[in-house]
Amino acid sequence: MGQKIVHPLPRTISEGDVSLYIAFTGSRFALHSSNEVAKEFGYEKRPIDDVLMFHMTFGKSVQDISLNAIANLGYAEISFPTPVYVGDTVSMTSTVIGLKENSNGKSGVVYVHSIGVNQNNEEVLNFKRWVMVHKKDKKTLTGIKEVPTFSETTPILDEINIPKIECVDTNATGGEFFFEDYEKGERLNHPEGITIDDSDHTLATKLYQNNAKVHFNDHMMKSTPMGQRLMYGGIIISMARAISFNGLQNAQWIYAINSGSHCNPTYAGDTIYAYTEIIDTIDHKREDIGLLRLRTIAVKNQKSEEILNPKDEDGKYLKNVVLDLDYTVIIPKNKTKK
Amino acid sequence: MGQKIVHPLPRTISEGDVSLYIAFTGSRFALHSSNEVAKEFGYEKRPIDDVLMFHMTFGKSVQDISLNAIANLGYAEISFPTPVYVGDTVSMTSTVIGLKENSNGKSGVVYVHSIGVNQNNEEVLNFKRWVMVHKKDKKTLTGIKEVPTFSETTPILDEINIPKIECVDTNATGGEFFFEDYEKGERLNHPEGITIDDSDHTLATKLYQNNAKVHFNDHMMKSTPMGQRLMYGGIIISMARAISFNGLQNAQWIYAINSGSHCNPTYAGDTIYAYTEIIDTIDHKREDIGLLRLRTIAVKNQKSEEILNPKDEDGKYLKNVVLDLDYTVIIPKNKTKK
Amino acid sequence: MGQKIVHPLPRTISEGDVSLYIAFTGSRFALHSSNEVAKEFGYEKRPIDDVLMFHMTFGKSVQDISLNAIANLGYAEISFPTPVYVGDTVSMTSTVIGLKENSNGKSGVVYVHSIGVNQNNEEVLNFKRWVMVHKKDKKTLTGIKEVPTFSETTPILDEINIPKIECVDTNATGGEFFFEDYEKGERLNHPEGITIDDSDHTLATKLYQNNAKVHFNDHMMKSTPMGQRLMYGGIIISMARAISFNGLQNAQWIYAINSGSHCNPTYAGDTIYAYTEIIDTIDHKREDIGLLRLRTIAVKNQKSEEILNPKDEDGKYLKNVVLDLDYTVIIPKNKTKK
Repeated sequence: MGQKIVHPLPRTISEGDVSLYIAFTGSRFALHSSNEVAKEFGYEKRPIDDVLMFHMTFGKSVQDISLNAIANLGYAEISFPTPVYVGDTVSMTSTVIGLKENSNGKSGVVYVHSIGVNQNNEEVLNFKRWVMVHKKDKKTLTGIKEVPTFSETTPILDEINIPKIECVDTNATGGEFFFEDYEKGERLNHPEGITIDDSDHTLATKLYQNNAKVHFNDHMMKSTPMGQRLMYGGIIISMARAISFNGLQNAQWIYAINSGSHCNPTYAGDTIYAYTEIIDTIDHKREDIGLLRLRTIAVKNQKSEEILNPKDEDGKYLKNVVLDLDYTVIIPKNKTKK
Repeated sequence: MGQKIVHPLPRTISEGDVSLYIAFTGSRFALHSSNEVAKEFGYEKRPIDDVLMFHMTFGKSVQDISLNAIANLGYAEISFPTPVYVGDTVSMTSTVIGLKENSNGKSGVVYVHSIGVNQNNEEVLNFKRWVMVHKKDKKTLTGIKEVPTFSETTPILDEINIPKIECVDTNATGGEFFFEDYEKGERLNHPEGITIDDSDHTLATKLYQNNAKVHFNDHMMKSTPMGQRLMYGGIIISMARAISFNGLQNAQWIYAINSGSHCNPTYAGDTIYAYTEIIDTIDHKREDIGLLRLRTIAVKNQKSEEILNPKDEDGKYLKNVVLDLDYTVIIPKNKTKK
Repeated sequence: MGQKIVHPLPRTISEGDVSLYIAFTGSRFALHSSNEVAKEFGYEKRPIDDVLMFHMTFGKSVQDISLNAIANLGYAEISFPTPVYVGDTVSMTSTVIGLKENSNGKSGVVYVHSIGVNQNNEEVLNFKRWVMVHKKDKKTLTGIKEVPTFSETTPILDEINIPKIECVDTNATGGEFFFEDYEKGERLNHPEGITIDDSDHTLATKLYQNNAKVHFNDHMMKSTPMGQRLMYGGIIISMARAISFNGLQNAQWIYAINSGSHCNPTYAGDTIYAYTEIIDTIDHKREDIGLLRLRTIAVKNQKSEEILNPKDEDGKYLKNVVLDLDYTVIIPKNKTKK
């Protein structure tokens, strides 16, 4: 408890990373595609896509936290406090905030609080995570059970670190819908489906310097029940976010990821579809922006509109459902529409 | 008629896009590979490859013009009025210049004039295009038939927007041949063949933010007669241009694309070859440069030298011919040779 | 003898190339990943990975030296005299330093000394290489036999062109071991294995503008005994170097490549493993750094720890051994540890 781990390998994010991310995902959010749009929004230049920044920073913790984990169990309270730009260098530190021995005495759950910073030590990513790992000493029962509690959703602050939005040119962003146009309970079936191949996902995961063996080593994976390389779950988050552009064009900022589940594995050749439910519309004291709490469900090899409920009668995810993501985005209000 | 469509998603072109384009195509034109060569040619730094710029800008219009089109019928008078550099942001607007109802009353042809500009509103791309689309009202015959006329070739202006070429170091460009060395009717068999895989073409098309479903969605395409993802035709234009380096090393500027036909589909695994005919040599009032009107034929899975005529006796393209491109390049004159 | 060949196509290296290299290899050496780490080491910004620079510069010579060669026979005395940065433009010149006719009179060996420079004409790469080529005149025996001699290892100079290393933050580099921690004869089994797909290796080789047909043209290769595209040997050097990170985290500079052998071909789908032997530990008059002479063996589709000796009793390489690389790296001494 309280152990602090400085993850090695700070990473400078470059224009090359930005281009590769667009090539991997086909992402079209205007804020991250165009310096001119970013300037209209009050930025000096286009900030890095939040999900790309997440992968780049998160990748640092794989070596120390999850490389030999039995399972990645969950995430909570993920936030993106400060925008990141080309040329910034991100690094990450984790602190152990919880420990729980499993009843078998052979493994346990470790809870960590991870904070990513830029070169000026400003927080760019903040999240909690828990993984199941083997115990070194499998014979001694310690009975340790210090489990932290997490908010169901990342708290929304009064101060949000994005420039005041004066106007949004819908001719540039490609979307006509603003905060007031979404209703709680509404569902958006995003029409696009994108197939992911071997090179797509391994190039991306290597770019993020995430070195979990299951993603890269086909020779090793052939002798596992999977029989092939497993796709890094973050790839699916990226694809779901990119596919959700159609219907959420102006929701260009991820404020938080509240929780997420990789419900089923994905492999090369899978085609990813997605739909989004508006869980909540959250007004903000700022006059220019509001927030939407979203649930995006990614599905493999089946059109998203065919999935009415991602879980079956027993509460088990359908076999084609691959991601259940609960997150909160920022979207300008109608008054900014130009 | 006269309707103006502002295509969303202006795009900043970066060093990452330039590197990816070289990785996709293997293109070796020195002007686009080396800042030092570009400076010798009078540029401040290397301009963006014309075909890359075309894809980046053209990609913007897919959503509005051709996403749900029945067919892309043709292009005309494509020109590249201003060089584009890393850091520039391109966007595009189209105006409807022609409408023709098909005799069945259910579909028709729409002609548009599309203009791409940079962040300073300077024209960087200018072309006309026509696509066949479904009619909303399939029952009412309108009889509309306003068909614009196009020049067979993009007109060549007295002012050409490239620096005065003082000298060309053939040790740098890799080519010994200049304007005067080419003869009308001459044929160049480019020796290289390059195989394109799934990830190559889908990464490229996603980078261009061209979101036509047929290129990405293998799940959907499996239930079509094609049975697999169709390659974006622009990929073949890029490959043909890159392969044509061998024999046209000093023809580093595309002045215009006069017309083009994607004669047959291409799929992952196809190997692309190409040959080029010199349709015309066109002197220019500038003393440093001339132009070559070229016809480059791209062929799949067959050496280009085996194709004597891309069409059979009935005027139908041979089944391995995948591109018939009529375009005009700029090439320095012999006096610039160093 | 003495003929000088200026290889065409100088190449500007960009942030895009750096990102792509990380995506291809998953390389994690901190010096090349982070500007902040590079600054701590006394650089203005992160220098280009030595192997990437090698490929970029070496690629230039393929067209003139080895495109139609019967075989690439060997390399010697490869050194990296000056660091290269994003924005630098590299080019290369070769001089013929040896000629030896084969006894059949139909082919011979050409020895060249190749020097790569940056835009300021500073040497960035220096090596000797020999290839077997066809003779133009196959009928006349010339008896020529001028064979240069090479050092077994690239000589180590008193002046080494890297900044004085004040301190190395092991929290940043991810490695605890310094010069004094390695012993002659020690063996490091690097645990990772990485599978390479078609797009990975062809994108990389095209990025390097290495246009040897065997790497790209599947249509042509299908009618050869290989039956498929052959991977560019440099890809394996890159993968072996990236995989060797685990155990050599602080050995971030390649001082020299003494010799290397591509023992067996690699194809798409192969998984690469590697182990490294410390051939020698070489102290240096500088107080901050020492050198390690390494032998890294790359193996395909078999864990590196299973290979005790890369050669069988007859001195022939085992069929899964794909690279035998003898090279020298620079590594800080213990006193720099922070």
